[in-house]
Amino acid sequence: MTNQGAMIGVDLGGTRIRAARLTPQLTLEARAEIPTRVEDGPDRIIERMIGLIREVWPANGPINHIGVAAPGPLDPFTGVVLSPPNLGWRNVPLRAMLADAFGVPVTVGNDANAAALAEAMIGAGRGLRHMIYLTISTGVGSGIIVDGKLHTGARGLAAEAGLIPLLYGDQVATLEDLSAGPDMAREAVRRMESGERSSLAVVSGELTAEAIGAAARAGDDLAYTVIASAGRNIGLGIVTLLQLFNPQRVVIGGGVSQLGALIFDPIRATAAKYVCDPAFLEGVEIVPAHFGGDVGLIGAGALVLTQGGTLDLEEAARML
Amino acid sequence: MTNQGAMIGVDLGGTRIRAARLTPQLTLEARAEIPTRVEDGPDRIIERMIGLIREVWPANGPINHIGVAAPGPLDPFTGVVLSPPNLGWRNVPLRAMLADAFGVPVTVGNDANAAALAEAMIGAGRGLRHMIYLTISTGVGSGIIVDGKLHTGARGLAAEAGLIPLLYGDQVATLEDLSAGPDMAREAVRRMESGERSSLAVVSGELTAEAIGAAARAGDDLAYTVIASAGRNIGLGIVTLLQLFNPQRVVIGGGVSQLGALIFDPIRATAAKYVCDPAFLEGVEIVPAHFGGDVGLIGAGALVLTQGGTLDLEEAARML
Repeated sequence: MTNQGAMIGVDLGGTRIRAARLTPQLTLEARAEIPTRVEDGPDRIIERMIGLIREVWPANGPINHIGVAAPGPLDPFTGVVLSPPNLGWRNVPLRAMLADAFGVPVTVGNDANAAALAEAMIGAGRGLRHMIYLTISTGVGSGIIVDGKLHTGARGLAAEAGLIPLLYGDQVATLEDLSAGPDMAREAVRRMESGERSSLAVVSGELTAEAIGAAARAGDDLAYTVIASAGRNIGLGIVTLLQLFNPQRVVIGGGVSQLGALIFDPIRATAAKYVCDPAFLEGVEIVPAHFGGDVGLIGAGALVLTQGGTLDLEEAARML
Repeated sequence: MTNQGAMIGVDLGGTRIRAARLTPQLTLEARAEIPTRVEDGPDRIIERMIGLIREVWPANGPINHIGVAAPGPLDPFTGVVLSPPNLGWRNVPLRAMLADAFGVPVTVGNDANAAALAEAMIGAGRGLRHMIYLTISTGVGSGIIVDGKLHTGARGLAAEAGLIPLLYGDQVATLEDLSAGPDMAREAVRRMESGERSSLAVVSGELTAEAIGAAARAGDDLAYTVIASAGRNIGLGIVTLLQLFNPQRVVIGGGVSQLGALIFDPIRATAAKYVCDPAFLEGVEIVPAHFGGDVGLIGAGALVLTQGGTLDLEEAARML
């Protein structure tokens, strides 16, 4: 079983690339990171990624597998990154390029799917057969466990919950457009520009969800309502997910989820208000993720252990 | 194998109840129907349903199983009808009541799930492992095949696509609110009342999707745009389903689907326009259902053959 040895996990993000050596139990060992520098384009970025992997490659003892969590949409069966908005790539054969460089099997998966697998195997969704994982930061992604397995769809493209289209007045916007961190910042700026007062007016540089959260906790009304509005939109997205997937738990990760009750209260209230039948929420908790910034690296390892999400999680957990 | 004999299929709708005897190959034999008369309440309705089943019960030769397609949400594992808006029932133990009356196993399933199974086993989705079935008539329902099995979720409540919240302005409306037959009629009336001209103004009685379709085909602009708008909204719902489920085909049934190109053209155009990546539509057709009004009865039989949707469809198809 080639999955049983040490492995390398890679987390490819729009801002930075991280790599780590993981034990077969998904414990992180050596790690390293570099900035992504999207403007470099895929070839140079992958070249630097290869250098980064070499940094954490063990001097002695073999590596049997490389797992990569990358932005979707991507085809996990071929390892081709299709068209991630935050990278601007088009049909990049990431798996083939890394396999050529290292001569070991490479598994490439959607980063939100990877995180969902990590949470389902050893995190906040441990032991569940039906789970939704949502990550809300600069974008919104999701990974879904259906009947004990990663939900991939026919071509491995399933579970793009951030891109649920919503009619917003006369326009169509996605859940991500209406709830991610940049949306909160835009909304706060728009309201201040239209004359509303807020302590956020003195924040220099780009507004972050963290800064908006700090202002809300200090009593800033505008900050509070901007977060509540994003929470409501996320809650409506969760209504769609509850009604389509009927999960046992909803796990929310990503930077925005660290706003705590400020965001979880409106999320939970909206889900309860709009779900079509209370049975969809009976015994179903909407909880923060177990893992923070390392979830991509651990998820990359979970992708390897589950053979790209094709194994039943109970079976995969026996390998831990 | 108790599923192998003749069976009774029942289709419980808001307007009428139909029952039929089916061969193990899902061919309809004797059939009968009565009006539902929702105002009678569950006890009297189920009493009349029992009488209806007796009408199609064979004089000689056993019946091994009864399958019932009923409006959701319902719990298929317990056979309890939870809260269908079109019946106004609350937690009615339909399966137990029918099993008591007849002394044979009874399988109760969501009507859209039953229809999805019928289409997947012997209809427009035959042989596919990933399929979306949408039914659009007075309401919008769905049944989804994921990895060769009916997608049920943890408690059997999954796949309520009609209840996707779609409008996120100041109001929340569901896909059903924005695309089903009654919505088209309301929208046509609203526009005529605000002064727009239409040949529909002379239609007496309630406006049906069929009448709106006839007017549109005869060149009525208002009728045409009302259907196009419903089609756009259905198309947006399908974008959500494509991105969340990545199916091989989308099959659309129900009365509204019989509007042909009038509704399928805007559905397909909207799906293509708003899907986040063309890969989700590559090789994916959005097609009319194979079955018409009999799909509930055949679906009730398909529920029996698939043991309430728990069997893999390839396995179930071997029993045909």
